[in-house]
Amino acid sequence: MIENVPYDALQVGQTAEYSKQVTEQDVLLFAVVSGDANPVHLDAAYAATTPFGERIAHGMLTGSLVSAALAMKLPGPGTIYVGQSLRFRRAVKLGDTLTVQLTVSEKRDDKKLVILDCKVVNQKGEAVATGTAEVIAPSEKLALKATALPTIRIG
Amino acid sequence: MIENVPYDALQVGQTAEYSKQVTEQDVLLFAVVSGDANPVHLDAAYAATTPFGERIAHGMLTGSLVSAALAMKLPGPGTIYVGQSLRFRRAVKLGDTLTVQLTVSEKRDDKKLVILDCKVVNQKGEAVATGTAEVIAPSEKLALKATALPTIRIG
Repeated sequence: MIENVPYDALQVGQTAEYSKQVTEQDVLLFAVVSGDANPVHLDAAYAATTPFGERIAHGMLTGSLVSAALAMKLPGPGTIYVGQSLRFRRAVKLGDTLTVQLTVSEKRDDKKLVILDCKVVNQKGEAVATGTAEVIAPSEKLALKATALPTIRIG
Repeated sequence: MIENVPYDALQVGQTAEYSKQVTEQDVLLFAVVSGDANPVHLDAAYAATTPFGERIAHGMLTGSLVSAALAMKLPGPGTIYVGQSLRFRRAVKLGDTLTVQLTVSEKRDDKKLVILDCKVVNQKGEAVATGTAEVIAPSEKLALKATALPTIRIG
């Protein structure tokens, strides 16, 4: 089940976290979805010649975890995504576990607009991205069954 | 081959486009990569009960196309992604073809920083997202073989 926090129940200072490991499969699938086939993400031999020294995840894959945190956790289902800013601060390596930390920083009653600070850290606690999200929070309480995700086979 | 435009060759006003259809597969894969299993993206019966009336793509899937445009087209390979802002202006339906339009708006010589206006339109020319990207452009010309993307089987 995924449950939301409707606008009236949201409090400035309220926090939520969402964690996910960035796997080899995720990087391949993100390349397919986006069409970004840069070898720095996909080709270990090429990536070894870059300043990163190894394959790194696409920066916006981190952004996709921020959007999932908003959609699944805070405010959760029924949220309308209005805007997002992100600063990419550190490369994400394959196998890193990222945690998105959301904090409600502002509520604007006229449009049920909510501003959230977003920070994404890796398993060492290092910030890989920071930013601000702007959403319209749901008016009503919702508790939905998350759709079962399909099995993926690659190659 | 994917080719870049190094910092010195970039001109304010220079443009590039990148188009991709948003398929059923893309939405499923984006759900797997991000972990966002909201039924508005995945469950046609539930989506029919929402104000959208049908399944919509995740907003940040559009963001992933913006990042691909920067990585594949302008400035292209070797670009370091520093920051991105996005405003989500219209829902993206499954089957929509999105075109990312990039325009170089500013160059800052001290850090080889480049600012690009980003606009994403659907097949009707309607803006689905707008924003600004900040990147460090590559110093050197690069022409790389894009890595072949794997075949994906779902379910």
